[in-house]
Amino acid sequence: MSEKGILLVVSGFAGTGKGTVVKALMEAHPAYMLSVSMTTRAPREGEQEGVSYFFTTREEFEKTIAEGGLIEHASYVGNYYGTPRAFVEKQLAQGRNVILEIEIQGAKQVKEQYPDAVLVFITPPTARELERRLRGRGTETEDVIRKRLSRAAEEASRMEEYDYIVVNDVVETCAAQIHEIVQASRRKASACGELCSRIAEELQCYAQK
Amino acid sequence: MSEKGILLVVSGFAGTGKGTVVKALMEAHPAYMLSVSMTTRAPREGEQEGVSYFFTTREEFEKTIAEGGLIEHASYVGNYYGTPRAFVEKQLAQGRNVILEIEIQGAKQVKEQYPDAVLVFITPPTARELERRLRGRGTETEDVIRKRLSRAAEEASRMEEYDYIVVNDVVETCAAQIHEIVQASRRKASACGELCSRIAEELQCYAQK
Repeated sequence: MSEKGILLVVSGFAGTGKGTVVKALMEAHPAYMLSVSMTTRAPREGEQEGVSYFFTTREEFEKTIAEGGLIEHASYVGNYYGTPRAFVEKQLAQGRNVILEIEIQGAKQVKEQYPDAVLVFITPPTARELERRLRGRGTETEDVIRKRLSRAAEEASRMEEYDYIVVNDVVETCAAQIHEIVQASRRKASACGELCSRIAEELQCYAQK
Repeated sequence: MSEKGILLVVSGFAGTGKGTVVKALMEAHPAYMLSVSMTTRAPREGEQEGVSYFFTTREEFEKTIAEGGLIEHASYVGNYYGTPRAFVEKQLAQGRNVILEIEIQGAKQVKEQYPDAVLVFITPPTARELERRLRGRGTETEDVIRKRLSRAAEEASRMEEYDYIVVNDVVETCAAQIHEIVQASRRKASACGELCSRIAEELQCYAQK
């Protein structure tokens, strides 16, 4: 793995099945891995340090923010969650494609710092299908389902701020489309500056011989 | 083929083997076709109207330019060559990916009129390899080879104006990379406006129920 990895941001409405798509992508291609978040939340039964999360104190977390050690962060129900920069950059340097499953605010923070990051929004084929998937879980109350649909309606207005939109109809097809997008992004002229300079220099030498 | 086709511009130094790559791409995927150019040059033995070229008079050609009937055009050794708009748009509407094998000036003209067009520059892995391929033909004089390398050195300085750079090391790999790029370009948010609007509207309806 000599080529640098791609930073892949994946977002989507609750119920779209993005977790399943990401799992299929990682199963099909070992070069992908999920980022491990840092959090101030207490570990739950069975959660492992450095696998589920990097667990830390509030004080340490705030120090890490101040030092620029997080690519993005947010707080949720009184706890901090964030993406550790050093961990992500190490994986990218080793040629792994690092996946961040985050929301639009975080996605925008990532793009500002890593312009070559690839932002993908996964949508179900129709709103009806999203409702069917949410109800299909059988665990949510009517009230929760309504809130999720209403939240999705808000999120939908910002879909076009992503780089790419993929439809999750068949999971494997959707995962394959994301892989095509990541592969294509390696060939972007903006990512090939080194190659272009080398070829141009070599040709200059030949032309002057 | 319900989806609209992609307009694919392919450029590369003389000797890069772009013709071979384009042929491999069309053989692997029947949805691709080469554009047929319009020219004022006289037909040669075996050339067929509408297959090799659309043959026309100088007067007709200039009238077509004036009417905006060409996407791009250039003159070469006293003859006009151009890409007929109506032909290309009909093929795209039918879901075919239309390939234009043209140079940087034409490529820029295409991008201005079709911002969703995909501009790909094919490069050999090294300048040495380009020289080897040029000499390998065995038909060119030393003078012609030097002129081609010198021309390539000029062209190399504008490689980064393309959307994507692909290396033609193994022909089939190069063709597969171009196909990935074309497939990925279909998922660009800028190409998915209709999908995004439909999902957003549907979700609005659900949220207001």
